[in-house]
Amino acid sequence: MSLAEAGDSTIERQIDTLGRQARAAAAALAKAGTAAKNAALLGMAAAVRSRREAILAANARDMAAAREAKLSGALLDRLMLDAARIEAMAKGLEEIAAQPDPVGAVMAEWTRPNGLSIARVRVPLGVIGIIYESRPNVTADAGGLCLKAGNAAILRGGSESFHSSGAIHAALVEGATGAGLPAAAIQLVPTRDRAAVGAMLRADRWIDIIVPRGGKSLIERVQRESRVPVIAHLDGNCHVYVDGAADLGMARKIAVNAKMRRTGICGAAETLLVDKACAGTHLKPLVEDLIAAGCEVRGDAPTQAVDARVKPASANDWDTEYLDAIIAVRVVDGVDDAMAHIARHGSHHTEAIVTEDRNTAERFLNEVDSAILLHNASTQFADGGEFGMGAEIGISTGRLHARGPVGAEQLTSFKYVVRGAGQVRP
Amino acid sequence: MSLAEAGDSTIERQIDTLGRQARAAAAALAKAGTAAKNAALLGMAAAVRSRREAILAANARDMAAAREAKLSGALLDRLMLDAARIEAMAKGLEEIAAQPDPVGAVMAEWTRPNGLSIARVRVPLGVIGIIYESRPNVTADAGGLCLKAGNAAILRGGSESFHSSGAIHAALVEGATGAGLPAAAIQLVPTRDRAAVGAMLRADRWIDIIVPRGGKSLIERVQRESRVPVIAHLDGNCHVYVDGAADLGMARKIAVNAKMRRTGICGAAETLLVDKACAGTHLKPLVEDLIAAGCEVRGDAPTQAVDARVKPASANDWDTEYLDAIIAVRVVDGVDDAMAHIARHGSHHTEAIVTEDRNTAERFLNEVDSAILLHNASTQFADGGEFGMGAEIGISTGRLHARGPVGAEQLTSFKYVVRGAGQVRP
Repeated sequence: MSLAEAGDSTIERQIDTLGRQARAAAAALAKAGTAAKNAALLGMAAAVRSRREAILAANARDMAAAREAKLSGALLDRLMLDAARIEAMAKGLEEIAAQPDPVGAVMAEWTRPNGLSIARVRVPLGVIGIIYESRPNVTADAGGLCLKAGNAAILRGGSESFHSSGAIHAALVEGATGAGLPAAAIQLVPTRDRAAVGAMLRADRWIDIIVPRGGKSLIERVQRESRVPVIAHLDGNCHVYVDGAADLGMARKIAVNAKMRRTGICGAAETLLVDKACAGTHLKPLVEDLIAAGCEVRGDAPTQAVDARVKPASANDWDTEYLDAIIAVRVVDGVDDAMAHIARHGSHHTEAIVTEDRNTAERFLNEVDSAILLHNASTQFADGGEFGMGAEIGISTGRLHARGPVGAEQLTSFKYVVRGAGQVRP
Repeated sequence: MSLAEAGDSTIERQIDTLGRQARAAAAALAKAGTAAKNAALLGMAAAVRSRREAILAANARDMAAAREAKLSGALLDRLMLDAARIEAMAKGLEEIAAQPDPVGAVMAEWTRPNGLSIARVRVPLGVIGIIYESRPNVTADAGGLCLKAGNAAILRGGSESFHSSGAIHAALVEGATGAGLPAAAIQLVPTRDRAAVGAMLRADRWIDIIVPRGGKSLIERVQRESRVPVIAHLDGNCHVYVDGAADLGMARKIAVNAKMRRTGICGAAETLLVDKACAGTHLKPLVEDLIAAGCEVRGDAPTQAVDARVKPASANDWDTEYLDAIIAVRVVDGVDDAMAHIARHGSHHTEAIVTEDRNTAERFLNEVDSAILLHNASTQFADGGEFGMGAEIGISTGRLHARGPVGAEQLTSFKYVVRGAGQVRP
């Protein structure tokens, strides 16, 4: 914490007030029934649609300021809202409403020899702080998911999307209050002051968990400074390993899809490892397919040898999450060498093996220490929706509480409910 | 972190070395089969027995130093080992061996419309740091539980139990290596220097989770300073609420058992709340039973009125975890008032309601925000063994990852294993 931030008592007080209100709202949300929560989500979707012009006008203000500040094209694209993106937000809220309510679900239940019946029951987590950057739609996605799981949310959007997020937030509040839920169910930090982030990270009295969404520097700052536990993933440096026993046709399809379907998502492959046992037959077509798909290939010496267009990979490349149409390619000596490479350079996110050898596949699935391991499938399936979990707030590479896609169910805790008939402990 | 600690590079290097070794051991343990882990646990039990004289001699050194340092009788009792306590340690390790192996268990499994089969599979957490105080038996309990779940453990015992823990640790290493597992599976910090605690709390590069076991000041320090996530409970300020619809005989049995069976455990009741609807009939016998059982009763005005031996409760009493034969008693206005009292003064650990009214019971079980809620049963059942979970490392009052009793299963993480047939994402 910087001294400037610690001394900024106005911001501290503001976050303290939001926190206190969120805690009270969380108590009400924990008791709210599924019907009320779903009515709120559908009301939010309706309000997002009915407030479309206001949201677009707010977004236009943000876009004008962003252009004036000469923000990059990629950032402007993330910031921009249009009718289609607003409709997608509304649809997203409706999809969250259609998901099963995780709260109250009995996760396990058993009876002890003394007759005590014990149930582990899902309950909301409490108050969730979301710190995000330029995409204003996170306001709706994150707010909706938190509410579905019975949690109060404190949202801190990027300063460049300040007006957009405010207009979306007004729609969420309309939906929540329309269903009889507290207005403080979803709160937006009402200041652009960056000190608010530090104040949230210190508000462990009020906030149960922080979810940062954004670039590496934001997530690193949050992980470094936060007194509140954090669910985050830093990197998705994902690997595809083409084993000696891989079917070439399948390997080609998976490698191109894993890298090129969308290059900017965390489940996109960044490194292709090819077993030297099949490099003679598989390496050249794999490289040619990637280049034909518009991908820059940076390879080790054997990979450079198969195609003149391959650029030399530097040591750095094995550790880089490009999030772009670039891939690092290396020839390895079997599955053990592939797993050693992943252990050294991977980010514990998502890795795939392509092989027809079931034993080799099982070794890879068991031994690689990542949130998601795939056999004969593209790493681009690393997604809560693709897992059938509905919307997600991100993919966790941490080992605690939530790992992999974080949906409504992962935003819950549990408690033990014990039913007796007068038992005392001997 | 104090500057003195940050500057103590010898200790930092020592913890760094332990961490590096633990990480390597954790990789081996994650692959170790159930048979090897159980053989190690049984070998540890045998070694604890065969090394009994050495353990007793080491403990005698610690006890002599503790007496010289004029430590309290309670502390000397916690420190003291005898043949029975050593046998209990060995039996505890055998019981851990007899528990099911959580690692590899499929927690959930489903197939997507595109044919992808998805399984959520339990995996070890990694490296667990245990920071404890005077009880040397924690060395065996915690080390054994961590190993069962495939984790490497770094144990930091209390300085007063330094020799005892060292002798027990030698037995654990004998058991682990005898079963072909790495010696670094369970490491003991080989210094009494308190700076080692700070170095562990900063070692988030190597340690995945810290579990503090001990008094409030230790746990507060760990929660305040740790860069590593912490599983801890601070207080067990547990409540028994006797509802207006309670059976008097059952309420008397439960109140006395919840308070007096063992007063020093975290699930012991500290406050008794009695509904004013039944205070006329129930309050006096409840108070008399408690006093007859040797308990000091501190009550509000209505409670003082039923028995001259009741001392006046001060505002402080409602927030105090006595861990002693003292109870605070208060008359409340029904279940809502009881829940409001618990929300204000409770520690989210364990609370019980005694009532014959099922609806009132369900409201209490649903709405009170504690790790364990009991209906018509004693709070002293708040225990991993009583839950049928085997040994426990403690009871978590946090909401993340583990809540309630923390056994081997709670010392695991999971990963997603996805099996396909060449699927790519459209």
